[in-house]
Amino acid sequence: MTFFKEVHSHGPGMSRLGELYFNGKVVKTPTFMPVATKGSVKGLTMGQVRSTGAGIVLGNTYHLHLTAGEDSVNMHGGLSEFTGWDGPMLTDSGGFQVFSLAGINSINEDGVWFKNPANGDKVFLSPEISMQIQHKLGADIIMAFDDVVSLATEKRHRTLEAMDRTHRWLKRSIDEHNRLLKTSKHRPKLFGIVQGGLDKKLRKQSLEYVQSLPLDGIAIGGLSTGESRSELRSMLDYLAPMYDASRPRYLMGVGHPIDLRYGIDRGIDMFDCVLPTRNARHGAFWQKESGVDVQHSIKKQQFVDELSVLPGSKLLRAQGYSYSYIRHLVRSKEALGGQILSIHNLRYLQEICEEYWRES
Amino acid sequence: MTFFKEVHSHGPGMSRLGELYFNGKVVKTPTFMPVATKGSVKGLTMGQVRSTGAGIVLGNTYHLHLTAGEDSVNMHGGLSEFTGWDGPMLTDSGGFQVFSLAGINSINEDGVWFKNPANGDKVFLSPEISMQIQHKLGADIIMAFDDVVSLATEKRHRTLEAMDRTHRWLKRSIDEHNRLLKTSKHRPKLFGIVQGGLDKKLRKQSLEYVQSLPLDGIAIGGLSTGESRSELRSMLDYLAPMYDASRPRYLMGVGHPIDLRYGIDRGIDMFDCVLPTRNARHGAFWQKESGVDVQHSIKKQQFVDELSVLPGSKLLRAQGYSYSYIRHLVRSKEALGGQILSIHNLRYLQEICEEYWRES
Repeated sequence: MTFFKEVHSHGPGMSRLGELYFNGKVVKTPTFMPVATKGSVKGLTMGQVRSTGAGIVLGNTYHLHLTAGEDSVNMHGGLSEFTGWDGPMLTDSGGFQVFSLAGINSINEDGVWFKNPANGDKVFLSPEISMQIQHKLGADIIMAFDDVVSLATEKRHRTLEAMDRTHRWLKRSIDEHNRLLKTSKHRPKLFGIVQGGLDKKLRKQSLEYVQSLPLDGIAIGGLSTGESRSELRSMLDYLAPMYDASRPRYLMGVGHPIDLRYGIDRGIDMFDCVLPTRNARHGAFWQKESGVDVQHSIKKQQFVDELSVLPGSKLLRAQGYSYSYIRHLVRSKEALGGQILSIHNLRYLQEICEEYWRES
Repeated sequence: MTFFKEVHSHGPGMSRLGELYFNGKVVKTPTFMPVATKGSVKGLTMGQVRSTGAGIVLGNTYHLHLTAGEDSVNMHGGLSEFTGWDGPMLTDSGGFQVFSLAGINSINEDGVWFKNPANGDKVFLSPEISMQIQHKLGADIIMAFDDVVSLATEKRHRTLEAMDRTHRWLKRSIDEHNRLLKTSKHRPKLFGIVQGGLDKKLRKQSLEYVQSLPLDGIAIGGLSTGESRSELRSMLDYLAPMYDASRPRYLMGVGHPIDLRYGIDRGIDMFDCVLPTRNARHGAFWQKESGVDVQHSIKKQQFVDELSVLPGSKLLRAQGYSYSYIRHLVRSKEALGGQILSIHNLRYLQEICEEYWRES
């Protein structure tokens, strides 16, 4: 059964339109996936998230494992049933969170021991366990367990080691995934993750390796972790001509409008990031001014008497909400302010994706 | 033009059904008014609030004056336009908040000087200023400025003084209201407030005084401020036979299901309270068990694997949300948990009100 179809391409390494198929449901790409960290896009109902045009929602394996627990989610019938998202979901592998959020006790070839921040318990995660959790969570797309090196830290010397381990763990992820598929009615798609930091030789090696394996999709991991915008762009430029056409490409952790456009123009199909919703809760929103994506803070004095309506807010109320009212809410620490801006920002990113369809 | 009509009564001092008329819009009573403190029922859109069956929403003059400011609200066309509430709104006078929340600098016959908690500024509120602010806020029902004595404090000796001052301030509220009406297209209804603490002689005197004046409605103030449930009940019993039939009666600050039922059975038409939404944000919700209103905490272990659906949650998602999922959200400090429980609790109170119509 076809999982991904390239519908239109502007040529190798350039933007393309595609379709992802999930049991009769179609998601058009490029697409931005809102993040429901613990099974909720913060402050929003899934109906509201749907209204922004989102097609896939992401859940975090690390957070769901440590809070609700995969057994509870499974008892509900999986993440979509649990959260009320009427569509496909993707879970990450937990790798990124383990390496960025948790206090790590030890990493070895087998997996990672880390500390549960909530209670100090020691928790173990490995490629096999991550696959087991993700299968139980019932996501439609699951991610291989990877060893992630933040580009913001001084650990860049770990790049080669982490890439090699990510490759070995990818094999184990595939094996465990296939083993689980034998006894499961649930048929998630597995994506492999390309690592290699900012080293182009390593990235090429990693991409070629990941693309040589029988995976359903290709993810670019380890970016958007502290590098400069020009470093990110240079890497996207470099990788663009090397993707094969048959599989979807997912750039992990990217969510700024400017980077989204750049990624799509370099052949990326899928994106996720907490930026549109996290920034919104602090009052930040995007709008297009003279063709450029500009980020504003609603808290600024310029919005105090601005009676015109924030475009995305019409998804929550037909007449919309004024900048002035939203400013008042955010400054008064009223949750609705962040909710309105979250909806606006999520819609802003989907608009960018939809533009590519309109212009094709 | 008729403002209130008694549609059906079970007899003097007993429950009754009524209708409030606002420029063609009808609100059936008894009714519970959700509180939009600063122009937002915390975490909810007004569309969601509407879905619970609410007919009137309350805004707090004190908070709106100190945050958004009445001029900004007025520029939008009033509170309903500002907040997106498609229906009538009521504002309190600020009296209760000034006396319970603010650091008071001085009270005298003229009014109250208090400290703005946000910046320490000295702010003055008087009957005249409260009327001016409420007219600018554009509410459909406004409240007289009163001197409130909390029953939880040791200031009960102030009861007589505060009642007398409330009466004098009521006269000034009416005069200022009438003066403002002369030059205004906006025609809010003015309610007077009965004070007198737990002293029945004073309460009778206050009720008779307030009812002798040309007011559109009668509010019972200063209760639900620290007295016991039996003290509250005894006072409601006592006052019930003394209300005149032609005007709506509003019991301020009451929002527990048990007290709501008791109030309705003693002839009360309108209620407001932050309890259903504030409690919800801490995980508390109501449900009927063997005919009794029971309050639960969703955080309890008993809900961990409870896959059945919380009734009120169906207003947010047709299939509803499981107790288990809501528990997970609240425990994980996800705002959606409090939002779901807020909707459920608000619906729970409207259900109580609607029962009286069904049973009539």
